[in-house]
Amino acid sequence: MAAAKRFRFLLVSPYSLSERAAFQPGPRTGPKEAQLPNYAGIAHLLEDVEWELHPGAPATHGDWPVELREEFAITGVNRLPIVREACASGRYDAVVLLGGGDPGYLAAREIGHRHGVPVTSCAHAQMHIAGMLGARFSVLDISEVHNMRMADLVRLYAMTERCASIRNLDHPLPRPAAAGRPTLLGEEEKAARGEPSSMLEAAVREAVAAIEEDGAEVLILGCSAAYWLQRPLGRRLAELGWDVPVLEGYGCAIEMAKTLVNLRVDASGLAFPRDPPRRSRRRKFV
Amino acid sequence: MAAAKRFRFLLVSPYSLSERAAFQPGPRTGPKEAQLPNYAGIAHLLEDVEWELHPGAPATHGDWPVELREEFAITGVNRLPIVREACASGRYDAVVLLGGGDPGYLAAREIGHRHGVPVTSCAHAQMHIAGMLGARFSVLDISEVHNMRMADLVRLYAMTERCASIRNLDHPLPRPAAAGRPTLLGEEEKAARGEPSSMLEAAVREAVAAIEEDGAEVLILGCSAAYWLQRPLGRRLAELGWDVPVLEGYGCAIEMAKTLVNLRVDASGLAFPRDPPRRSRRRKFV
Amino acid sequence: MAAAKRFRFLLVSPYSLSERAAFQPGPRTGPKEAQLPNYAGIAHLLEDVEWELHPGAPATHGDWPVELREEFAITGVNRLPIVREACASGRYDAVVLLGGGDPGYLAAREIGHRHGVPVTSCAHAQMHIAGMLGARFSVLDISEVHNMRMADLVRLYAMTERCASIRNLDHPLPRPAAAGRPTLLGEEEKAARGEPSSMLEAAVREAVAAIEEDGAEVLILGCSAAYWLQRPLGRRLAELGWDVPVLEGYGCAIEMAKTLVNLRVDASGLAFPRDPPRRSRRRKFV
Amino acid sequence: MAAAKRFRFLLVSPYSLSERAAFQPGPRTGPKEAQLPNYAGIAHLLEDVEWELHPGAPATHGDWPVELREEFAITGVNRLPIVREACASGRYDAVVLLGGGDPGYLAAREIGHRHGVPVTSCAHAQMHIAGMLGARFSVLDISEVHNMRMADLVRLYAMTERCASIRNLDHPLPRPAAAGRPTLLGEEEKAARGEPSSMLEAAVREAVAAIEEDGAEVLILGCSAAYWLQRPLGRRLAELGWDVPVLEGYGCAIEMAKTLVNLRVDASGLAFPRDPPRRSRRRKFV
Amino acid sequence: MAAAKRFRFLLVSPYSLSERAAFQPGPRTGPKEAQLPNYAGIAHLLEDVEWELHPGAPATHGDWPVELREEFAITGVNRLPIVREACASGRYDAVVLLGGGDPGYLAAREIGHRHGVPVTSCAHAQMHIAGMLGARFSVLDISEVHNMRMADLVRLYAMTERCASIRNLDHPLPRPAAAGRPTLLGEEEKAARGEPSSMLEAAVREAVAAIEEDGAEVLILGCSAAYWLQRPLGRRLAELGWDVPVLEGYGCAIEMAKTLVNLRVDASGLAFPRDPPRRSRRRKFV
Amino acid sequence: MAAAKRFRFLLVSPYSLSERAAFQPGPRTGPKEAQLPNYAGIAHLLEDVEWELHPGAPATHGDWPVELREEFAITGVNRLPIVREACASGRYDAVVLLGGGDPGYLAAREIGHRHGVPVTSCAHAQMHIAGMLGARFSVLDISEVHNMRMADLVRLYAMTERCASIRNLDHPLPRPAAAGRPTLLGEEEKAARGEPSSMLEAAVREAVAAIEEDGAEVLILGCSAAYWLQRPLGRRLAELGWDVPVLEGYGCAIEMAKTLVNLRVDASGLAFPRDPPRRSRRRKFV
Repeated sequence: MAAAKRFRFLLVSPYSLSERAAFQPGPRTGPKEAQLPNYAGIAHLLEDVEWELHPGAPATHGDWPVELREEFAITGVNRLPIVREACASGRYDAVVLLGGGDPGYLAAREIGHRHGVPVTSCAHAQMHIAGMLGARFSVLDISEVHNMRMADLVRLYAMTERCASIRNLDHPLPRPAAAGRPTLLGEEEKAARGEPSSMLEAAVREAVAAIEEDGAEVLILGCSAAYWLQRPLGRRLAELGWDVPVLEGYGCAIEMAKTLVNLRVDASGLAFPRDPPRRSRRRKFV
Repeated sequence: MAAAKRFRFLLVSPYSLSERAAFQPGPRTGPKEAQLPNYAGIAHLLEDVEWELHPGAPATHGDWPVELREEFAITGVNRLPIVREACASGRYDAVVLLGGGDPGYLAAREIGHRHGVPVTSCAHAQMHIAGMLGARFSVLDISEVHNMRMADLVRLYAMTERCASIRNLDHPLPRPAAAGRPTLLGEEEKAARGEPSSMLEAAVREAVAAIEEDGAEVLILGCSAAYWLQRPLGRRLAELGWDVPVLEGYGCAIEMAKTLVNLRVDASGLAFPRDPPRRSRRRKFV
Repeated sequence: MAAAKRFRFLLVSPYSLSERAAFQPGPRTGPKEAQLPNYAGIAHLLEDVEWELHPGAPATHGDWPVELREEFAITGVNRLPIVREACASGRYDAVVLLGGGDPGYLAAREIGHRHGVPVTSCAHAQMHIAGMLGARFSVLDISEVHNMRMADLVRLYAMTERCASIRNLDHPLPRPAAAGRPTLLGEEEKAARGEPSSMLEAAVREAVAAIEEDGAEVLILGCSAAYWLQRPLGRRLAELGWDVPVLEGYGCAIEMAKTLVNLRVDASGLAFPRDPPRRSRRRKFV
Repeated sequence: MAAAKRFRFLLVSPYSLSERAAFQPGPRTGPKEAQLPNYAGIAHLLEDVEWELHPGAPATHGDWPVELREEFAITGVNRLPIVREACASGRYDAVVLLGGGDPGYLAAREIGHRHGVPVTSCAHAQMHIAGMLGARFSVLDISEVHNMRMADLVRLYAMTERCASIRNLDHPLPRPAAAGRPTLLGEEEKAARGEPSSMLEAAVREAVAAIEEDGAEVLILGCSAAYWLQRPLGRRLAELGWDVPVLEGYGCAIEMAKTLVNLRVDASGLAFPRDPPRRSRRRKFV
Repeated sequence: MAAAKRFRFLLVSPYSLSERAAFQPGPRTGPKEAQLPNYAGIAHLLEDVEWELHPGAPATHGDWPVELREEFAITGVNRLPIVREACASGRYDAVVLLGGGDPGYLAAREIGHRHGVPVTSCAHAQMHIAGMLGARFSVLDISEVHNMRMADLVRLYAMTERCASIRNLDHPLPRPAAAGRPTLLGEEEKAARGEPSSMLEAAVREAVAAIEEDGAEVLILGCSAAYWLQRPLGRRLAELGWDVPVLEGYGCAIEMAKTLVNLRVDASGLAFPRDPPRRSRRRKFV
Repeated sequence: MAAAKRFRFLLVSPYSLSERAAFQPGPRTGPKEAQLPNYAGIAHLLEDVEWELHPGAPATHGDWPVELREEFAITGVNRLPIVREACASGRYDAVVLLGGGDPGYLAAREIGHRHGVPVTSCAHAQMHIAGMLGARFSVLDISEVHNMRMADLVRLYAMTERCASIRNLDHPLPRPAAAGRPTLLGEEEKAARGEPSSMLEAAVREAVAAIEEDGAEVLILGCSAAYWLQRPLGRRLAELGWDVPVLEGYGCAIEMAKTLVNLRVDASGLAFPRDPPRRSRRRKFV
């Protein structure tokens, strides 16, 4: 029996590259399930969701995946019209922003709140759900420059006390800047075939260091192109005797969206005031 | 059509008083829905849950409701056998501890983790969900002594940076210590009848002060006997132009339980190690 | 004798509106000195600077000034090409971003560091120079929504411990959202004519409250359209007996640029790594 | 000449096990001096004290020593009646709770304050006295699960900024869960005989790591069954050239009790309000 | 029967003024008991102490009491030779520095540690003992400039998280700078005679504000010339229903000295390294 | 063409030793340029400054350089008369205190503010300018005891959140306490001759550790006798691929002085109140 659909979500990819691009976050054709990376791992979370997948706004920063602050800024702005339209349409209970570095998230929440529509995103959701499980989390993330985006998010979300560290797997996305260096391209496939994956090995090594040296009690993943690590990394850590949860972003963002919809809240109007606000405060503390 | 049941939860009351007790958290007879306080407000959250309600262990601290640290400690220990049995039974996906001051919660999570069963509780869940909505929350709570329990929880949960304040409504539970003072008894009923409720007025006053003076962006409720405030307080604040979410504990604890069940996690084994642990760390940071 | 020019700076306005726009940050014609708001107050700082003024990228968020996070995100991205070109040109020792809410600043610093060119901005510079003068600063800022941008910056710049408060003057920019409400339009002129200015009165009231209630030891100004307050507010506070510095952003950003140029640094390559970095770290703390 | 007795203290053991139990915190017979572990090290502190030793409430969690949060919760509640009676009796100037993990301490202080009787406990006293000696302390503690109790206490006592780390000696108490693993049983005796003690070696290793890697300036001991380490560890560190104080809990709790008695204070009535309080506050900060 | 003397302490006044000076911290002649301000309040603490009182080094900053940072620096250096000599003499178990603003304390502890002699001081001791009683303290202090010395000490002692506020009683010491303004001169006497004391009234008002607005749970006194407030302020607060401890510095510094002597520690050699140190660390955290 | 002189500064050495002293911070004769250590590195910063160099007050702590807190306290007081006279003379726009450990700085700023003259100092200026470049700095410093002075300054300046670590190069100044140990004497000369310098090697090693292990994004130098490291260390780190700024104190203090002069501020009168203050606050937060 098909599960009752309790929710209507729009999932929005961070950006779309051209067909010529060396890297594609997922297949560009086929049913939405095929186009959503790591679908198998989150299929059970979507059973009670009527969902659509937006492929993301065409990239204008270049025809390669995003790592720099500059690229995150551009990409984030590019997808705001999608959020605006989705929230205004009345067709969705929530908007789930895909992409590990949360491009456009604060502005998107501001838009969402105007319409009473929750907007969730992958890093933000992971950090909050990590807090439910243990005192401090570490972010396992792909590259030096991408790490700094994660650091900005930790600050913006006031998570500095809870972030034990950001650990660098040093497997960047296949971008021009990474030419001639090992990237994460093909690592998931190697791991799936049971072949050694240097990225998975790096993840194991850095996860153990995060636990032993940084005080991490929960692990989260930085870039969505590393979310596939969740299961194999979790298995490897369990084999080593480490009893530690590994989160990834899609599932967390989807579950957080359900929670907000069910509780009939989206974001505080004091954190995301309408314009004009019905009421304003003389002072704010940060 | 009946909604599919996706979850099996045990809801555990914090304690049960004798039939003679002046205060009862809810009716002692009738269907479980009638016995669960504020059911109407959370009925929609339980639609996809197959749930049972445990009345709580008989109180041994006295035949009155709990406010003191001493009483919280005793009550918390009293309900551990219920948690132990529920987790061992294999009958539940999660255990939801009712009661605003989370009696027994840390020990219960330790037990739950041994069995891989998530245990959630009202203050803890509210604080984490508040973080999803805004930067800082204030706790609206019933009395001077109960406030200190909430303060202990804020510290234990490492929420000091996020807690803007604990605001005292000064409407204690009907306990011997409150003899001759106004209590919260009857306030919900007055408000429901549209009569003036001094407790609701206090809540409005302190909520506004929390927003204007303390920097709260989200409001949560301390004692479960004050959860009925959520709707009337929310309405009053909206009428005043304040666009601020008001949470209560039952819904948050239920939703957090769903999230953990869906994500197949309960608590970090590094925060709640098994005994003996398969692996231990040389150092921890707090 | 003309002062020797020691520095070559490009000053970049945050955005430019059409001629039809109700609000113009400064005159659109005449010499650069006439187009730079508050020039008189900072003329002495530019004596040893050979400077150009870029009018800013044409606004695409709407033909009105910026207050929302959404608008800041869009505006910030719009001026990145100007920064990119200026840094690549080799014509400037530093780029000074005008505008109170620092649109595009983090990405601009990332670009600047690639070229070894310091980029400074008004809120960031004010916060750092405030730290040289006293332990904690308050931001006097124009409106509820603009306040939240300032709060985001305080977090991003890791200034939460040093920010005593953000105080709301409730004199928004003349935007459609402010239709029918008092705005800051004309307030500077009123104050200049010696007429009562409600904005200046609000600034005095909130400055005193920041000193007396929030523990501010230094005052900074949020929106560049409020920078004119520096002198009249400083005078009023002095008349009241308060011995407190009031900063504004242009002067601070210019002076910070000089300092960086003189010290031959721009930004840490560990905070703004090149892509690819020559060397990467296994972990980062936030 | 016998020293004048200035103080009357009741020392309360954390719990008592049956005669059959594999582990006994101290001899069960003989004079009180013989029954108090590590008496030799603190005898000089008791010279001006008229003291009694309560053996502790019979254990109900099992017939083995305490390490789990669950066991701490149960044990803590079990000894509250002893505290209640002692405080009410008027026979003691102060109650000193023995046991490294402070079972029942917060509730016991609440009780004590009702009677104006100071109650002190070992971890709490050590942490405060450590602060008098240096900026940050590390806790040397016996096992993974016991470490988490210490972490909870660090949070509850608002000592997170002062706790450099908790270091795990991995020598648990002889409990069923430790079956087949090395425990701390016999380690003190080995060290006393001048034989190698793996526990002492672990303490030296972790103490040095706490100093060199975590920034500890003072060392405190977690479990009372590790307090014997104070002297041999202190000696070993001195031999290595480390000039660092090592505290243990009994002496600190006794000295803190003297200080409070002499200063005629016990605990703030704002932190441990009477019920009902004579006066209550509208808000609390945590 | 005379109490056995367990301790040998030297109490060192902060500085001595000439006979012509308008202000004397205490009588300049008579037995030491008469010369020690507030002796009555601490006589019971000195019963088991063999003590001497050093009148302090002659003031070189001017012939008036100390309030400015400049004066504290000078005074602090002036009394170092006294500390040096006392520690080297072998005649004292501890040195107790009198004076509310702890002049010379850090350097004096450095000297003391070289000799294994504990040195305690009034603000430092109060702040640490306050922590034993409640979560946060406020300092009731005499004047704007003296407040800033207390603020420096709060930072130096890493007490920022525990200091709720410094409250200004605005009754400065009788210094040339205070000419024509009300000072604290004569206030103690007025209060002792049962006449209204504006200083005591200010203390009550600011103490209540510290409790109600700042979250103080314990009150400490800043300047030693305000220590007389302890008893009358405590009484007044109790009459108002506030159940809050009020500390003063002499008693706290004496008791802390006893604790350190009894525990055979003075200061961590890692916080106050000998020169040369037997062993040094590669890094320190602050 | 000679650069226009925009500023008039007095540079004040920390102390002067006798001609017999084993260590001299710089040549004692010749033009001021020859007497100012590291002049070559900062000559360009002094081009627009009319400056004088004060040799410092004769040392009274001993005829050797300063490392201990005691010596810093004494030295700091010794140079206050120089600051007082310079500020009162009206001859200088600013006073720049030389010396790495900022002896006398807080009192000197208090004096300066009385006259409206900015006073800057090396550690303070470095820490603030470091914040403009990256999130966290490490201090590379010469010895165990000197490190503790730097730690005190980090606390006093409220820089604990920004200080990643203090790293010990273990090359003390040539003082009696260092007899028989390697000191920093001659290290600069070795490095200048291209010979191996153990101090430079230590700096490289600790700098890399600060980056990799402590999260430093900027490096500052502790003792002025180590400022020569700036260039060779910067080069070595660049060769290793580390893209990190290395600051030193003279340049930072000079540039900060220029900024303050240009902005017409010196220090907040709320942080350094005049005596008597025209206006005082009821409370301060620290």
